[in-house]
Amino acid sequence: MSKILVFGHQNPDTDAIGAAIAFAELQKALGKDAEAVALGAPSEETQYALDHFGLTAPRIVETVANETTDVMLVDHNEFQQSVADIAEVNILSVVDHHRIANFETANPLYYRAEPVGCTSTIVFKMYKEHTIDIPQAVAGMMLSAIVSDTLLFKSPTCTEEDIQAAKALAELADVDLEAYGLEMLKAGTKLSDKTVETLLDLDAKSFPMGDKNVRIAQVNTVDLAEVFERQAELEAAMDKANTDNGYDLFLLVVTNILDSDSELLVVGEPKANVEQAFNVALENNRAFLQGVVSRKKQVVPQLTESFN
Amino acid sequence: MSKILVFGHQNPDTDAIGAAIAFAELQKALGKDAEAVALGAPSEETQYALDHFGLTAPRIVETVANETTDVMLVDHNEFQQSVADIAEVNILSVVDHHRIANFETANPLYYRAEPVGCTSTIVFKMYKEHTIDIPQAVAGMMLSAIVSDTLLFKSPTCTEEDIQAAKALAELADVDLEAYGLEMLKAGTKLSDKTVETLLDLDAKSFPMGDKNVRIAQVNTVDLAEVFERQAELEAAMDKANTDNGYDLFLLVVTNILDSDSELLVVGEPKANVEQAFNVALENNRAFLQGVVSRKKQVVPQLTESFN
Repeated sequence: MSKILVFGHQNPDTDAIGAAIAFAELQKALGKDAEAVALGAPSEETQYALDHFGLTAPRIVETVANETTDVMLVDHNEFQQSVADIAEVNILSVVDHHRIANFETANPLYYRAEPVGCTSTIVFKMYKEHTIDIPQAVAGMMLSAIVSDTLLFKSPTCTEEDIQAAKALAELADVDLEAYGLEMLKAGTKLSDKTVETLLDLDAKSFPMGDKNVRIAQVNTVDLAEVFERQAELEAAMDKANTDNGYDLFLLVVTNILDSDSELLVVGEPKANVEQAFNVALENNRAFLQGVVSRKKQVVPQLTESFN
Repeated sequence: MSKILVFGHQNPDTDAIGAAIAFAELQKALGKDAEAVALGAPSEETQYALDHFGLTAPRIVETVANETTDVMLVDHNEFQQSVADIAEVNILSVVDHHRIANFETANPLYYRAEPVGCTSTIVFKMYKEHTIDIPQAVAGMMLSAIVSDTLLFKSPTCTEEDIQAAKALAELADVDLEAYGLEMLKAGTKLSDKTVETLLDLDAKSFPMGDKNVRIAQVNTVDLAEVFERQAELEAAMDKANTDNGYDLFLLVVTNILDSDSELLVVGEPKANVEQAFNVALENNRAFLQGVVSRKKQVVPQLTESFN
């Protein structure tokens, strides 16, 4: 049997990489020949975590069928977010915390999804269920993933299970949870050296809403003003992206991870839906969204509703 | 919040009903307001188990959105096997042991699938993980479900986990596993008082293979000869079913649960694919299939392969 490849979604975040490393280690401890790989390079935040715990980034793969027949997915299930040739291999396991869609197998499999804030929280439970010890560096990556997905527990997606898992993992990893977490999040907010095009593409997803095609990008920062210094440049790039890709409406959610608020920048139409969705008046194409940090829970549903 | 309805697939078997009862009980023990319901009446085998353990059959529902917003599925996930208005409600949980297909949710959920022989084996593990005691009658239904799905451990779908769960449940239910299991299976084999149409519809599924539409029905018996006394009548009904429903090929798999073998009856074309798939020559439209008891593992894949 060929080696089982374990990987998270395209454009990987810290959970996609951290959960892949942790789940591959668990499989190895259970006697399987598994290797964590990634569908892209680590972000600066993820690289900070890898460096801190002395790990190297997983090997990047473009396809998998050329080297294995069996794979395990973490932190995603939808085929369009997975490896290009996912339909050609046998999916043995999935561990995830998202909705299920565009996913299909020919055979029965292990599938473990829970509505928690982070995949690594579920992997942590699986280690406990199998009573297998978590190596220190692996615990560090799982902790980093939870801090990343929950913005240090401030996201409304965060559950009590995420908090308890993170506390236990911080002990195993021998780090101060708050201090380490904030440093890691800050490492992912170095936006000033990035082009506006890169910034708009760091974490962006498209959503059909009504008969419109809506693009929503999100970036984390500790300094909102620094990002909005380039507002004119950002707007030009968003306008060009709309034209080039057929988006009707482009939202950039700039999230201040220290205050847990966001500032919105909007290009395209219908802007009236944005104002209605968040009960704000756009000024200079911008609006402040008090307490909003989660695209999944605090942006997409509200905007979707305004189109219905 | 309205009561959560928990149910298995249409045309329910003992696992669809047993796992629904067991999972609803687990949810209640965890503080949820849950009720097991069913998408059809219990079979004679299931009714035997319910009677033995002093339980009443779950209420039968045709739709669910009229009485609840939230449901939990056991022993299935594909929407065409579920309640008619499944797309109108929120799926909180799934516990299953089948492939995943034709399944989609808008929100993150609990999904627990494992490639074991029976859903009730997974529910048994979940009781243990939550350290919740299983009531005696519930243990009896879970045991019955495992015996039913694995044909008393003789099916190739049976795993070591199913066997260990059944042994533990037999102790909790205070029954002799072998003796009770055989009596329950026999209770499901009273075929002589059923019309051939009923018999062909007890457990039948359709499968597209190549450009053909293949119908495969399975019945359990302790007396092959008794079933084949009505061969002419069965063939006439299968031929009529082919015409009425557009099936090209109709296979009836008559499984002897005592010997763990099956006798095949075939009506329609191409019969050559059947002969090739099982490496047999049909005589009088029949063939003996040594050691074959599982449609899922020993009939469908082999026949599918012969069409490729």
